[in-house]
Amino acid sequence: VKVFLTFRKTFEDRCVAVKGDRILAVLEAGAAKQMFPDTAVIDGGGRYLIPGFVDIHMHIESSMTYPAEFSRIALPHGTTTIVADAHEIANVFGLEGIRSFMEQKTDMDIFYAIPSSVPATNERLETSGAAIGKEETAALLDCDEVLCLGEVMNFQELAPEDDRETKIRRLIRLCQEKRGRDIRLEGHCPGLRGVDLNRFLYEGVDADHTQQTAESVVEKSDLGMFLELQMKSLTPETVQAVCDHHLYENVALVTDDTMPDHLLHGQLNRIVRVAVQKGMRAEDAIYCATYTPARRMHLDDRGIIAPGKIADFLLLNDLEEFSPEAVFKSGRCVKISDEIDTSKDPFDLESVENDRCNSEANHYEKAEKQLFPEHFYHSVSCKEAQEEDFELRVDRTCSKVRVNVMQIGTFGTATKVVQRILRVENGTVCWQEAGLSLAVIFERYGKNGNISHGLVEEAFTKEGAAATTWSHDSHNLLVLGTNPRDMKLAQNRIRKLEGGYAAAANGTILAEVPLCIGGIISDEPLEVLAKKLGKVRTAMEALGYENNNVIMSMSTLALPVSPALKLTDYGLLDVKTQNRVELIEEYI
Amino acid sequence: VKVFLTFRKTFEDRCVAVKGDRILAVLEAGAAKQMFPDTAVIDGGGRYLIPGFVDIHMHIESSMTYPAEFSRIALPHGTTTIVADAHEIANVFGLEGIRSFMEQKTDMDIFYAIPSSVPATNERLETSGAAIGKEETAALLDCDEVLCLGEVMNFQELAPEDDRETKIRRLIRLCQEKRGRDIRLEGHCPGLRGVDLNRFLYEGVDADHTQQTAESVVEKSDLGMFLELQMKSLTPETVQAVCDHHLYENVALVTDDTMPDHLLHGQLNRIVRVAVQKGMRAEDAIYCATYTPARRMHLDDRGIIAPGKIADFLLLNDLEEFSPEAVFKSGRCVKISDEIDTSKDPFDLESVENDRCNSEANHYEKAEKQLFPEHFYHSVSCKEAQEEDFELRVDRTCSKVRVNVMQIGTFGTATKVVQRILRVENGTVCWQEAGLSLAVIFERYGKNGNISHGLVEEAFTKEGAAATTWSHDSHNLLVLGTNPRDMKLAQNRIRKLEGGYAAAANGTILAEVPLCIGGIISDEPLEVLAKKLGKVRTAMEALGYENNNVIMSMSTLALPVSPALKLTDYGLLDVKTQNRVELIEEYI
Repeated sequence: VKVFLTFRKTFEDRCVAVKGDRILAVLEAGAAKQMFPDTAVIDGGGRYLIPGFVDIHMHIESSMTYPAEFSRIALPHGTTTIVADAHEIANVFGLEGIRSFMEQKTDMDIFYAIPSSVPATNERLETSGAAIGKEETAALLDCDEVLCLGEVMNFQELAPEDDRETKIRRLIRLCQEKRGRDIRLEGHCPGLRGVDLNRFLYEGVDADHTQQTAESVVEKSDLGMFLELQMKSLTPETVQAVCDHHLYENVALVTDDTMPDHLLHGQLNRIVRVAVQKGMRAEDAIYCATYTPARRMHLDDRGIIAPGKIADFLLLNDLEEFSPEAVFKSGRCVKISDEIDTSKDPFDLESVENDRCNSEANHYEKAEKQLFPEHFYHSVSCKEAQEEDFELRVDRTCSKVRVNVMQIGTFGTATKVVQRILRVENGTVCWQEAGLSLAVIFERYGKNGNISHGLVEEAFTKEGAAATTWSHDSHNLLVLGTNPRDMKLAQNRIRKLEGGYAAAANGTILAEVPLCIGGIISDEPLEVLAKKLGKVRTAMEALGYENNNVIMSMSTLALPVSPALKLTDYGLLDVKTQNRVELIEEYI
Repeated sequence: VKVFLTFRKTFEDRCVAVKGDRILAVLEAGAAKQMFPDTAVIDGGGRYLIPGFVDIHMHIESSMTYPAEFSRIALPHGTTTIVADAHEIANVFGLEGIRSFMEQKTDMDIFYAIPSSVPATNERLETSGAAIGKEETAALLDCDEVLCLGEVMNFQELAPEDDRETKIRRLIRLCQEKRGRDIRLEGHCPGLRGVDLNRFLYEGVDADHTQQTAESVVEKSDLGMFLELQMKSLTPETVQAVCDHHLYENVALVTDDTMPDHLLHGQLNRIVRVAVQKGMRAEDAIYCATYTPARRMHLDDRGIIAPGKIADFLLLNDLEEFSPEAVFKSGRCVKISDEIDTSKDPFDLESVENDRCNSEANHYEKAEKQLFPEHFYHSVSCKEAQEEDFELRVDRTCSKVRVNVMQIGTFGTATKVVQRILRVENGTVCWQEAGLSLAVIFERYGKNGNISHGLVEEAFTKEGAAATTWSHDSHNLLVLGTNPRDMKLAQNRIRKLEGGYAAAANGTILAEVPLCIGGIISDEPLEVLAKKLGKVRTAMEALGYENNNVIMSMSTLALPVSPALKLTDYGLLDVKTQNRVELIEEYI
């Protein structure tokens, strides 16, 4: 094989010897056969051998699945190690949710980030199922698989001229006290620059995975901030900035969120492919998806093909597609294509087949033993909606109202605030005739029964609705639609399913995905889940919803840390100021 | 100032704001004054501002001094952090010796390596004052300032085809069990290559600080071994190999050993200077002396000028000399030259003067309170030598003997084995007439009273002797000389001093350095110590000893892990095979 030599960032002909779960030696091509005559040899046929991919910022729940199933699907794409920030399951079940993830046995190595912002805002602005506070953080810091504090985002709580004991400051100090050098502080600071950026870094939070520009790449690198580039950051300009300044030591490629239907076609290898397409040298992209991320997380036992390191490696036919022909995790064969000739040698392929962790049977076997505690399957507790829940009543006499509206775009998850004047008839706002969609959130943890309303522009253009409990980050039951009948139908269906995603029109459910675990995770094989989700996606698009990712676009209408105007179960929120916004601005 | 931007490896005009012990912000030039109007500003006059140097492989005892004094001298040279492997004091006092170092308050940040090889061989081959075994290692692993297992060297004990439970394997496993990711395994493997090198790395020991060649730099880097380059590795060819392959991520500059008289003139900054002289770009050399070493040791809070990081930085006039004009440690001014104009601003220089840790008064103040336990000052327990101890008697009738001789060279510490035929008269070997020097070791811990003899070629050419307890690594009392009278005199003097280094000729002590703490460390200010040691060095050279470092050359005659033939208190040892060698090979 041509082995990737990490420090020279080049390939040379070598052979790699494996003993147990680790690499024993990297020797001149052909030497292993002589040196270890009784050992099975796989002839890589001159293919490229690179370390397994290491994805240090991602959320398993974005794929609507659980760790064991995620591992089964993503490992054959070449991702051998992930650092998961399980903040979605944490919003629903708190520490117990995170622990339920950690307890699952997976072939992939899964490390964890402590979700720093659960709930995303606070209990006065949104109702979540649970919170991660000082006590939960302390408990997680005792877990060996916890590598970092994840997604520290509220930079206003970190201003140094104001030494207030904020929640995030307490968590950061706790991490440093309990784990010292052995913990990383990961940030989330889109668009932060200049003095504000310096302030954020001053507290010790020195990584960012949000969208970057060519300018932010340079500014943040100069200030010592580690950059985790996900798909949306991989513009030609950003990649150029990385390459021009040789910032490979300071850059890791990450996935952040991968939808179930996308996961079937790749995971971190997709990001590597795109980085190369946008202009990065393949060797540099590999480096940024293996060695740099492993080192960032102090995972010094991987990310490089070298003796003593964990035997996680892939064989590639080319340096463009990054679709592995073979995947080895901890020395065990996870996948090997028929193209690779294993017949000449005593390599026991049959045992590999048996060992293999990527069979569908494997999924079912695992699913038979219930993966989560019983109550995880019964987590949706809210009223069954009636049609009148999807009406907007005004409590004073008027003929028109000026309303604040969330305008979504065709790309990304940010909304804009626009104001519209709507007619009022019989004390009811006529939002339907204005071409708007109504968003209604039902608090679903049985805590306070909150129901809130918002209006959305540029969502559905036809009659219909969608409903979901997969609504970031609190995962209350969100209904979006253009008529009360379909909205009621979708809400009732999701409530009955104990969580999921459904689309309805003309009084019928068009498509649905059950997400029975906490209302956010499916217990079905990913292949099935992906197909179902694809149908929901298609149905929503057919109802006129236009966005590069309609599922994510709708779900993040409820995310109160994503700009600019969002809806929680307490009502509308100006994300920047974190102030409440009235739906009805003026009665006319 | 021109600030070193670590990730772009370049300088740009910036200002650096400090708050407490950390860097608050790195801003556009001039911005700090506007932003923090009530804050003192030092005008760096366009000088270069770089992070403090980080030296991750060194021995404080090589400077014959103690941590507080080392800090006082080395800090103004710009070294703000060191990782010390205190294996000399450990050979004398074991865990108690290391703890006595750790307890000292220093302005410099001192981290520690666990000495993995104390004694260097084992108690059947040499007598040391103490040993560091499993128990001591476990105790040290509990110390937060311990970053690594230092100098793992015995690669034969690590062969993977032989799974024996060797001492070093036990220590490595203990480190991994107790500290997991948060520990580094540092190696010492001169000349190791090919399969042997792979074996060494397989156990997890993945750094080496011994002498490198251009070839070893490439081979070791390709195999994932981190390289710590000390002075003797900095040949033009080695530096070229690092530069050609851009191995800066995998290379740190280190000092290893700095003699007291050299320390007065520089520490890691000397190595940086030489790296640049040998062809490394100044920016790359700075990177390898600041960021790369800090990262290797997971010291993520330093090694870079960035907000949130510890405010350790230097001001330089140029990028050739690396003699700092100003040094700041944890935000406090340690040194500031009169060239830097601090008059225009409310910067309180007087308080800096008071704060300053580099005053000689400081030394005495600390020394007044006894730095070490009383028994550290009384550690030399061996017989007072008589002249007959320096005769070589044979116990059978013969007229000649063929002897094994240690031939020293004019550079470095390695010896060669040569055989000589010497005349025997009245049962005594006539070594003096053959132009040889006699080496005699007196076990000095009062354990067994061992006395051993060896012969040395190309040491002293004139009549005289030297004696020392600073004889690596066991630090028994070593006497080397060309006549019994001066050898006796030197031995008696060192014994009386409770340790030190002395040279004698014509029945007079020519020069001496008392090393009263454990026989290896001086309690005098380094300026005084250096002067005295310089005199011993000159005296030894005047007696015809020719070597680039006569002090080290003589002291390492007793080091049984340095090639090829060495002398312990048990006798001669073939270093490679670790087999005893008879002084008298044949009676003729």
